[in-house]
Amino acid sequence: MNKGCMIVCDGGNGAGKSTVLKSIAQHLQAQGCDLVITREPGGTPIGEKIRDILLSTDCSEMCDVTELMLFAAARAQHVREKIIPAIKLGQVVISDRFDSATVSFQHFARGLPLDLIKMLNEIAIDGFKPNITIILDLDPATGLERVGSRGSQLDRMEKENLEFLRNARKGYLEQAKDDPDHFVVIDASQPLEDVIAEAVKVVDQVVYG
Amino acid sequence: MNKGCMIVCDGGNGAGKSTVLKSIAQHLQAQGCDLVITREPGGTPIGEKIRDILLSTDCSEMCDVTELMLFAAARAQHVREKIIPAIKLGQVVISDRFDSATVSFQHFARGLPLDLIKMLNEIAIDGFKPNITIILDLDPATGLERVGSRGSQLDRMEKENLEFLRNARKGYLEQAKDDPDHFVVIDASQPLEDVIAEAVKVVDQVVYG
Repeated sequence: MNKGCMIVCDGGNGAGKSTVLKSIAQHLQAQGCDLVITREPGGTPIGEKIRDILLSTDCSEMCDVTELMLFAAARAQHVREKIIPAIKLGQVVISDRFDSATVSFQHFARGLPLDLIKMLNEIAIDGFKPNITIILDLDPATGLERVGSRGSQLDRMEKENLEFLRNARKGYLEQAKDDPDHFVVIDASQPLEDVIAEAVKVVDQVVYG
Repeated sequence: MNKGCMIVCDGGNGAGKSTVLKSIAQHLQAQGCDLVITREPGGTPIGEKIRDILLSTDCSEMCDVTELMLFAAARAQHVREKIIPAIKLGQVVISDRFDSATVSFQHFARGLPLDLIKMLNEIAIDGFKPNITIILDLDPATGLERVGSRGSQLDRMEKENLEFLRNARKGYLEQAKDDPDHFVVIDASQPLEDVIAEAVKVVDQVVYG
C-alpha cells in the first residue's frame, strides 16, 4: 500500500488541467495505485451544489466576499468528507484545483486581502496541505482561445476579462516562487506530451519518491 | 421619509416568528412605512440558493464549518445586495433571523468556537448592525410541538434534538443579556396578541422613537 498523499493540478482555464489529470490518473492506475480523483469547487455532493452556485451565470450579482466564502465552504466539506479519509486509507488523491486557486483568483485577480483569504483557507483546510501543487502555466490569451474552441458555454468565472486572468496567472507564479517545496510550474505552451511527461515525473516523485 | 433601519425577529422554531413578522409588517405598512421584508438564510437570489443547500435533508453529511461558512456567505450577499442599499434609501428592513441565529445555533448549540463565528459574522456584515433584534423566547419542547402541528416536513435544522434547541435558546438569552441596547426578549408563551403588542411597541420605538 502506498502512503496516502494529495496531488493538485491547477492553473488558468484552457491550460490543459483535465487532460493532464486524466493522463496522470491513467499512469498511476496502470501501476495499481488506489486513486481518488476529485475537483474544486465540488468533490462532494454538498460541494457540487455549491459549485453550481459559484459557476452559474445566473449568479452574476455575486459579491466577492460571498464568492470567497462559498469556495471556503465547499473546501471545508471536501477536506473533511473526502480528502482526509482517503489519505488515511492510503489512497492517492488527485484534485483539479484546490486552495492555490483561491489565492490566485480571489486575491491576485479580485483584489480581496491576502490575510482574509489565508485565514478562510486555514479554517477550511484545518492544517491540511497537499503534497504538491502542479501549476500548468499558460498565457491567458492562449488559454481563452483553447476554451473558446471547445464550443461549450463559458461559466461565470470563465467570463472574466483578460486582465483578471493575467493577474490570476501572476498569483500562481508568485505562490510557486514562495513555496518551491510544494509547487511545481510546468510550461503548458509545450506540446501536450511534454507537459504530461513532466507532470508524470513530478507525480512519481511524490507517490514513489 | 423615515430614517432607514433594520429590525430582526429571531428565536427558536415554532416561537411564532413568521406570524409576529407579518403583524409588524402590517402595522408599519398601515402607517405608510416603506418596508423591505426579508429572511435568513436567504433574502437574495444567491442567498436563497444557499438556503436550499443549508436546509435540504439531502445534506445531512454537512460539516459544522461548512454550515457556518454557508450561513456567512448568504449573509455577506444579503447585507451588500439588499440590506445596506435599502437602508440608504430610508427603508425599514425587517428580517426573519440574522447574525444572532448563527451565534445561537453554531456556537451555543453546535459548539463551534465563538471567536470563529464572530470573525466570520464580522467579515459577512462588514461593520453593519441591526438596530434591534427581537428574540421570541419559548421552551423548545413547546416550539417543536407547534412546528409538528403544522404538518409540514421538518428541514435539516428542525430535525435537531431537544438538547441542541435548548442550547440555542440559552444562546439567544445570553446574547440579549450581553447587549441590552440591541436585543429585546419577548416571552412567546404568552397569548399571541400580547406577543404581537409587545413586538409592535419595540418596533415603533425603533422606527419613530
